[in-house]
Amino acid sequence: MLVNQKNYQSIWFENNKTFIIDQTLLPFSFKVILLDTLDKFIDAIVSMKVRGAPLIGVTAFHAIANEMSLDSSDKSLKATVKKLSATRPTAYNLFWALKEIEDYLLQYPPTQRSEEAYKFTKEKEIEDIKCNQLIGKYCGEFLIDHHKLEKEKIFNIMTHCNAGWLATVDYGTALAPIFYLSELGYNLHIFVSETRPRNQGAFLTAWELDNMNIDHSIISDNASGHLISNGETDCVIVGADRVVHSGEVFNKIGTYMKAISCNENNTPFYVCAPTSTIDWDDKSEGKEIIIENRDDFEVSNIMTFDEKNKSVFSGRIASIGSNFRNPAFDMTPRKYISKIFTEKGSADSNSNSLTVHKS
Amino acid sequence: MLVNQKNYQSIWFENNKTFIIDQTLLPFSFKVILLDTLDKFIDAIVSMKVRGAPLIGVTAFHAIANEMSLDSSDKSLKATVKKLSATRPTAYNLFWALKEIEDYLLQYPPTQRSEEAYKFTKEKEIEDIKCNQLIGKYCGEFLIDHHKLEKEKIFNIMTHCNAGWLATVDYGTALAPIFYLSELGYNLHIFVSETRPRNQGAFLTAWELDNMNIDHSIISDNASGHLISNGETDCVIVGADRVVHSGEVFNKIGTYMKAISCNENNTPFYVCAPTSTIDWDDKSEGKEIIIENRDDFEVSNIMTFDEKNKSVFSGRIASIGSNFRNPAFDMTPRKYISKIFTEKGSADSNSNSLTVHKS
Repeated sequence: MLVNQKNYQSIWFENNKTFIIDQTLLPFSFKVILLDTLDKFIDAIVSMKVRGAPLIGVTAFHAIANEMSLDSSDKSLKATVKKLSATRPTAYNLFWALKEIEDYLLQYPPTQRSEEAYKFTKEKEIEDIKCNQLIGKYCGEFLIDHHKLEKEKIFNIMTHCNAGWLATVDYGTALAPIFYLSELGYNLHIFVSETRPRNQGAFLTAWELDNMNIDHSIISDNASGHLISNGETDCVIVGADRVVHSGEVFNKIGTYMKAISCNENNTPFYVCAPTSTIDWDDKSEGKEIIIENRDDFEVSNIMTFDEKNKSVFSGRIASIGSNFRNPAFDMTPRKYISKIFTEKGSADSNSNSLTVHKS
Repeated sequence: MLVNQKNYQSIWFENNKTFIIDQTLLPFSFKVILLDTLDKFIDAIVSMKVRGAPLIGVTAFHAIANEMSLDSSDKSLKATVKKLSATRPTAYNLFWALKEIEDYLLQYPPTQRSEEAYKFTKEKEIEDIKCNQLIGKYCGEFLIDHHKLEKEKIFNIMTHCNAGWLATVDYGTALAPIFYLSELGYNLHIFVSETRPRNQGAFLTAWELDNMNIDHSIISDNASGHLISNGETDCVIVGADRVVHSGEVFNKIGTYMKAISCNENNTPFYVCAPTSTIDWDDKSEGKEIIIENRDDFEVSNIMTFDEKNKSVFSGRIASIGSNFRNPAFDMTPRKYISKIFTEKGSADSNSNSLTVHKS
């Protein structure tokens, strides 16, 4: 999507070299980084220069392609996979992505692996983009039809966190229908919930929308209930970290309260997520899935921009003697979800059950 | 209450001179300020060195006492009232407080006004403290009884914003039952919602609890729904900016989503507020009360502590090209409120109606 009127992906090859956008500096500074050693790839994932499950997976593929161009032995491949697996111990998707490319490359003799790794990675990039465009189209066409959108009339969508192109290779998930409708000329206004504690809404989603020239207002997370109950929000659209096949949605902390606010006020609540986020194994309707409690530092401190020194700065925003709780995700029960959109179509809410079928 | 083991009020006289705590520097720096000119009083209110409706009212009384000691003429009194009225154009309570002291002092000849102003102000301080202690006792005793509190068992209360002693002269409103129970030796743990955009939870409530040695955890506002739905919260207690006589509660933005989270999970939701916050005139069940939209700057920037320079610092935390919406309050419909506690007792929730009676 556009950054200063120029098209970008969140990760890309130039002459088989990998470039990314350093997302820890956004929205204050737009910096492109070359990743040409395994250490740099690992640092990019660990320090969250890249984030979002789809993008982390593709970054791991890029890392392997880069390593295979230097040393394509079995030993090198296995060591690289092991190191990358350890970057985000709780990232379920990353583990499977690494297993997939390892199995793929082990089919080939070392002499072919470098070429195959680049080919595989480029295909995965295209696959991710196509998937997101389909989510955008399915959800966007549904909104046009179901909400009777008119080009002259403003349609107000609220979103949470960043499920935009920066979290994927391009196009995003929850923002995909927004980009789709905007391209068709619909008049949108987006309420961007800042999304404490990491502020991905105010930092990333707002920056994406600003660059795409889509009208939006940043709000404190606390304001979302009021802006739903007073009728200013036509629908809420969020992404998902994990969708349980029985219909429960795990997403960034704060999603649940938006969903119940929608439910109290008859406002539709939509989820956009690729089928790769569907958990087919859970037997507990989400009840046995453990919510990760992240570092206190995310709540006690905040990244801000020091205008005097033109630098990004971590400042303390809490009493020194206090403790913290920092659950990273919450579960939204299926009864609060109006519809889930995937690249294969949508799953309906139907009398208190919403089941995603393997197609 | 205690600050570094020493007892303080949020405002006090020492030899008829007024002292306050500069609340804009908390929790990073504890600074006591002498207010000895009208300009300093006005600045303290405008720049929010003092905040909270009860404390603002008492600060205005102190300002008038100070002015009357310098010039107690009718002209001086009326000019002082006028200047103080303009400090917070939307503060309904301040207007009535000023009218009350003006009417009171106009009964006396100028020669007696200085003495009377000090007397009036000191009485109002005591009245505020007694009122809050009664709220604490009524709510606290109810909690002991209704929730069957046991001293050895942790009772988990969630609160929002700062309705503590810093918002009043002493003791607070929503924190009053917490201080009451803690004094009786009950084992409490408080979830302190940070309360974006101004962070009064993380900055002030946590600081108060820390100084009173009451166990607490600061959480992002987004985490409250999850910590209610997973059963970790025994009840939520908040203050109120305005209680409509028909039972609706206007309080800091974000209160509404906590209330509906409680409702969805059968968790009691309590409001502690003095009867002075009750609006007896509204005929609309709160629907016609306008929600103030505050400055963008509160959302685009945040106060943080720069540990290197040991200074409080306002840092930008949003995309430069974005717009903002900043509603300051929300309305919680009466059906979500389990009970309202005032200094005169409590009002019950009863089959979808909760009416506060003039006693």
